[in-house]
Amino acid sequence: MRPYVKKDYPLSEIRRLLEPGPVVLVSSAWRGERDIMTMGWHMMLEFTPALVACCISSANHSFALVKGSGECVINLPTADMVDAVAGVGNCSGGEVDKFSAFNLTPVAAARVGAPLIRECYANFECRLHDARMVPRYNLFIWEVVKAHVATVPKHPKTLHYRGEGAFMVAGTSVSRKRRFKQAYL
Amino acid sequence: MRPYVKKDYPLSEIRRLLEPGPVVLVSSAWRGERDIMTMGWHMMLEFTPALVACCISSANHSFALVKGSGECVINLPTADMVDAVAGVGNCSGGEVDKFSAFNLTPVAAARVGAPLIRECYANFECRLHDARMVPRYNLFIWEVVKAHVATVPKHPKTLHYRGEGAFMVAGTSVSRKRRFKQAYL
Repeated sequence: MRPYVKKDYPLSEIRRLLEPGPVVLVSSAWRGERDIMTMGWHMMLEFTPALVACCISSANHSFALVKGSGECVINLPTADMVDAVAGVGNCSGGEVDKFSAFNLTPVAAARVGAPLIRECYANFECRLHDARMVPRYNLFIWEVVKAHVATVPKHPKTLHYRGEGAFMVAGTSVSRKRRFKQAYL
Repeated sequence: MRPYVKKDYPLSEIRRLLEPGPVVLVSSAWRGERDIMTMGWHMMLEFTPALVACCISSANHSFALVKGSGECVINLPTADMVDAVAGVGNCSGGEVDKFSAFNLTPVAAARVGAPLIRECYANFECRLHDARMVPRYNLFIWEVVKAHVATVPKHPKTLHYRGEGAFMVAGTSVSRKRRFKQAYL
């Protein structure tokens, strides 16, 4: 399965991966610097254009990079990467290069300057859509302009932060498809 | 375990339940009407005050109730409620009373007019904090003013929507507490 073999993915469907609420890794680059941060405070905001809202504290080293460049990549790590995820979230990009420190491989993106993280199950290239809520709430609205998603497995074992240093690992699926209206699937 | 025995819960800690990204049930009441909707597009926005951002489409019957009253309750259902969750998400409050239709019990809240849903693991009473992004994005920012959370089990088996009528059920926990800085726990 590793490294994940990824394909282009329809932008209107990225909710399938982000709506369950996984921890993600945000990669960015600006003026010769690059960084990665963990992020748990994000949500889907629109299907088309594919908008994602998120909160990035100005206390993060990445804040200046994503705001300055107006770009980032949202990367979806899986449970086997839990040490890298915890590590990335507990040091500062002002002190270490997180790609090197956690053996994460930067790969050139197609439509933004920020690097993809090769080891992740999915990568969503983002351009800043609306920064008006940044001063008050650190709330960024991104448009996903390109999505790379692994073809196998269908359901990645994502990590979901529970606090106190613990992550929930994505569990089994239960379908109620027969109860759904077609338009709501 | 049922019905859940709930206690007051510190507002600054509600992220432990919402950050993993569960589907929630939003209950509301306004001008003699009440309704429930499912919601998967939400995120934490601030610890103190405890702010939660969410997207509620104006196509929902609940939209007028939450906007008109400026209040709602965010209720956290567990996997045993999957039929009610799928049911609530696939009919309109304009046609049915969802409390009756899905055997959900309304309980008076302490600080808002919207009812709690008794069967849920947790209930977060919310007052509208900022509606300025509603016209453009259907983006509401709520302040949680009171939280009721079950004491057992510690980790509820929440539901996380994967699309196509399928929910991921919260899985096992993996701790990396020893790798966390105290301030980040």
